[in-house]
Amino acid sequence: MPAGAPAPTREPRTLPDDVTILYGRNAVHEALRGSREVQHIWATAHAVEEPWLAAVAHDASAVDVNVVADGGWIERRSGSPDHQGVCAQVAPFRYAYVDELLAVEHPLIVALDEIQDPQNLGAIARTAECAGATGLVIPARRSADVTPAVCKASAGAVEHLPIARARNLADFLGDARGVGAWVYGAEGDGGVPYTGVDYSGPGVVLVLGSEGRGLRPRVAASCDALIALPLRGRIGSLNVSAAASALLYEIVRQRG
Amino acid sequence: MPAGAPAPTREPRTLPDDVTILYGRNAVHEALRGSREVQHIWATAHAVEEPWLAAVAHDASAVDVNVVADGGWIERRSGSPDHQGVCAQVAPFRYAYVDELLAVEHPLIVALDEIQDPQNLGAIARTAECAGATGLVIPARRSADVTPAVCKASAGAVEHLPIARARNLADFLGDARGVGAWVYGAEGDGGVPYTGVDYSGPGVVLVLGSEGRGLRPRVAASCDALIALPLRGRIGSLNVSAAASALLYEIVRQRG
Repeated sequence: MPAGAPAPTREPRTLPDDVTILYGRNAVHEALRGSREVQHIWATAHAVEEPWLAAVAHDASAVDVNVVADGGWIERRSGSPDHQGVCAQVAPFRYAYVDELLAVEHPLIVALDEIQDPQNLGAIARTAECAGATGLVIPARRSADVTPAVCKASAGAVEHLPIARARNLADFLGDARGVGAWVYGAEGDGGVPYTGVDYSGPGVVLVLGSEGRGLRPRVAASCDALIALPLRGRIGSLNVSAAASALLYEIVRQRG
Repeated sequence: MPAGAPAPTREPRTLPDDVTILYGRNAVHEALRGSREVQHIWATAHAVEEPWLAAVAHDASAVDVNVVADGGWIERRSGSPDHQGVCAQVAPFRYAYVDELLAVEHPLIVALDEIQDPQNLGAIARTAECAGATGLVIPARRSADVTPAVCKASAGAVEHLPIARARNLADFLGDARGVGAWVYGAEGDGGVPYTGVDYSGPGVVLVLGSEGRGLRPRVAASCDALIALPLRGRIGSLNVSAAASALLYEIVRQRG
């Protein structure tokens, strides 16, 4: 990057469908720290002063950082106003395979049944990564994919957390039980108290459903037990990412 | 509400500053269930078919429900695209007093140090209400207020959860300790493991800081202990509302 005036940067062209543009500080920063190929970074003069990005910009052997005149340019390239002054062209997100997750010793896997809100998927990925989960499993259809919006909502956690797509979630849960894992589905109503369950078995899969509809019947039927957090107030349900956090940290507490 | 064609509804005028327009299904529904005065409701023909709202619309003694021709009208009146087809004019949010919260026997209070993101404030309010917390304390300055965006993000939980503003948060924590509560501040770094603490004392205040900056020094110094959730991944921090959920449910678990 030349010092001084921002380099002239052409207006973003229409991008081919297979170009992935991440946006947001943590999303881009964690992509650099993870295994995803980062091909190019664009940042405002303000954003490029952040130490982690300045270090990249001043390293001639690192990825190119273009300083653009204003955030509007980055908004047009990323398609989002939530870019925080930085976006990056990266390789497409690479999903893990469900078998890889099940091959881990004593896995702690979070499975999501048709969670379609990118904010919730990103938030749960972030918490799962922090809690040390082995990975996340989402259905191949009718689920939010790991889009740049999800990367942003996860604060970049998806760069470090294996995420796999299962063709059929109930079948995956059956496979997990087949290799000795215990499968617990979170239910707002009708589950046993979550603190009354022993999660110290050889493997744990925590299944969470969409907020509106909960777990589909076949998914619920594929669980060893349905568990519930106590609801002591007047509103009927926790946000699914709040439930994920409370349940995951209880599982982690018990597993030590 | 007349049956048949939607009643003609005038375009929203510019509203005086003291008029509060809630929007979103849960926000309006919980306002009706809570103690806030609901003065008027506007809904699309689709939204008014939901049972809870249809019941209000067909009850001549209840609040008026105007069916509007399209969601654009509600977006203009509420100022948000996230209205889900319904908005309501309501009395302003009434804050509780900190002394009321401290007067409760064995209180469980969540105190937020300058959390400015309405999504986080709303999400924490929702979790706190579900976990049965006594109430929430926010600083009177440099904090998100309980705006309609916060009501929406809380799924209406703020209608049932006392929320008080403290002139000075550190002083409030001192007052809480003065009446026998134990004050625990959540810290990403440097806190003791949260599971190693006994929360079964006569009262608990859980203090959470903003995501970027954590607790201010004087606030941290006003805590009996600083506690931390384990971070076992590669990213550096949990979202503050995810941390709130894991910590609150551990406190609830211990208090029984």
